[in-house]
Amino acid sequence: MNTLRTLALTGLLGLGLNTPLAAADWPALPEVAPAPADNPTTEAKVELGRMLYFDPRFSATGTVSCNSCHNVMLGGEDNRPVSMGVHGKTGGRSAPTVWNAAFNVAQFWDGRAATLEDQAKGPVVNPVEMGMSELEQAMDRVRAIPGYRQYFERAFGADAMTVDNAARAVAAYERTLITPNSPYDRFAKGDKKALSAQQRRGLETFNAVGCTACHAAPTFGGTLFMKFPTFTDNEYVKRYDFMADAGRFAVTGNESDRHVFRVPTLRNIALTAPYFHNGAVRTLDEAVRVMAKTQLNRGLSDEEVKDIVAFLNALTGEFPEQSMPRLPATPGWAFEVR
Amino acid sequence: MNTLRTLALTGLLGLGLNTPLAAADWPALPEVAPAPADNPTTEAKVELGRMLYFDPRFSATGTVSCNSCHNVMLGGEDNRPVSMGVHGKTGGRSAPTVWNAAFNVAQFWDGRAATLEDQAKGPVVNPVEMGMSELEQAMDRVRAIPGYRQYFERAFGADAMTVDNAARAVAAYERTLITPNSPYDRFAKGDKKALSAQQRRGLETFNAVGCTACHAAPTFGGTLFMKFPTFTDNEYVKRYDFMADAGRFAVTGNESDRHVFRVPTLRNIALTAPYFHNGAVRTLDEAVRVMAKTQLNRGLSDEEVKDIVAFLNALTGEFPEQSMPRLPATPGWAFEVR
Repeated sequence: MNTLRTLALTGLLGLGLNTPLAAADWPALPEVAPAPADNPTTEAKVELGRMLYFDPRFSATGTVSCNSCHNVMLGGEDNRPVSMGVHGKTGGRSAPTVWNAAFNVAQFWDGRAATLEDQAKGPVVNPVEMGMSELEQAMDRVRAIPGYRQYFERAFGADAMTVDNAARAVAAYERTLITPNSPYDRFAKGDKKALSAQQRRGLETFNAVGCTACHAAPTFGGTLFMKFPTFTDNEYVKRYDFMADAGRFAVTGNESDRHVFRVPTLRNIALTAPYFHNGAVRTLDEAVRVMAKTQLNRGLSDEEVKDIVAFLNALTGEFPEQSMPRLPATPGWAFEVR
Repeated sequence: MNTLRTLALTGLLGLGLNTPLAAADWPALPEVAPAPADNPTTEAKVELGRMLYFDPRFSATGTVSCNSCHNVMLGGEDNRPVSMGVHGKTGGRSAPTVWNAAFNVAQFWDGRAATLEDQAKGPVVNPVEMGMSELEQAMDRVRAIPGYRQYFERAFGADAMTVDNAARAVAAYERTLITPNSPYDRFAKGDKKALSAQQRRGLETFNAVGCTACHAAPTFGGTLFMKFPTFTDNEYVKRYDFMADAGRFAVTGNESDRHVFRVPTLRNIALTAPYFHNGAVRTLDEAVRVMAKTQLNRGLSDEEVKDIVAFLNALTGEFPEQSMPRLPATPGWAFEVR
């Protein structure tokens, strides 16, 4: 399931803790995300992708861009339970963070897009997100903006203004959205002072109770699918309405995929409240309690929760500085929006 | 009304045109906007103001920031007839551009805010814009985000997290949003090749027919109030429903202010379609025809319209590069949005 966990144990983290931890199980986040062979990351693609990512004109109302719900000025999402698309419409799931999404095994909560390239097309034609009737309608808007042509040509050559290339550019940009050098990462690289004593206790508890089964370093999630909730006989499942969403079952139709979701990354988790696929849980400490109960059938002491939360705060990385794109104009006219 | 027009005539533009133009009437845009004595522009204020400007969390839904409707990645507004605020609500007027708003004699279409500082507070509590119930409710959110404190202290000293200081910071940021060095400006500074022959003809026509009475250089608007429409007996007034909005009358209650509006700047006008206070006119050439008829009671030939539009395109300036702000987190929790 998770190849990262199958690495040979090559050392032990000198934590001074009760349980020796294998250093090979606790690597730091790579600073560069892998790119697929058919879409190598280039500066020209990243520049174009950044523009498209921030451009709201490809939504029905002209008000919703990728960044509206996956805000890179924040934790890569919108801090709402569920996102708000065109005309104030809302869906059933909470926006996943775009930061480090390049490391995910698949995209969307139900993994219905295998790649960032595929994912980029989804929200454009989702009636509660960007609300365009079809992808070519959105692309017609891109093509109608004279200033975009040169950026497509620079990135992809002549006659390049296609939906697929737009998606490739957005994906290339998203692959630059990596947040390395969190306190955890500095710790994993040998800076033993990078984590506080409480954070080190939290790391050990996180490991000891079994969180790492799904949320393993370096990404702490994103690399496999899992049933949620696994244990349903508890107060949380009803309170937060966790059984309402069939998860990946709606994609595959396989009974074994009922309530199965892509495990979310815990990178920058302190920045992305509220929590879970439906955004029903407002705070990180409650999210930790919920996870322990629903996935491990285990109660945690207040102290354990605090320690784990402290550790999770150590997964907040460094955000690369970004320039603000200038978006080319529709000179002397505007799209008919509704 | 417009002190810029009262400058002594110190020279003539060497246009090779029929009508000699006084160079003093055609200055270039200043590169720095004036700041009020009680809010001098500082780097610390600008940095804080930029963060607040891009932060959507101070709207009821957590989705609408200043930039949502006054998009600095575009022409400083949203290319919509009227803006879309929380829950997809819309109002009756088109968002004015934030670029060069620092030169305006007053803010909003009806001039109801005397300063950028006052203006910044309006949309926050407008039910169809950011939708907060009161300014202090929005400020409570700012105060609840731990990371904002240091920026307020750096900009304003201790105990500085007030509504007025937030507005001062946003205004200070907006005063940096100046677009100098348009083709017109380079022309005004002596580069005779900066305008094409058609643009020079357009400039002369623009002057000859009387547009400059309200849209005078260097700002081409923003510096006085005027009745719109002045001439009502024409096809445009009904077609575009121009009599529906009483303008400044709603602010002052004075009959003389009925249908009076702040004259908008024509700087970057090619980027800010659709046009007029109600955004009812989709294209710039139609806007030129409408203005000639409703304000000057004059028809223009197709050639004159094309020339003026060409000149107006020469008012698109250089947009300063901007860094993207990182917004401080609500660590491990999120606001309750609705």
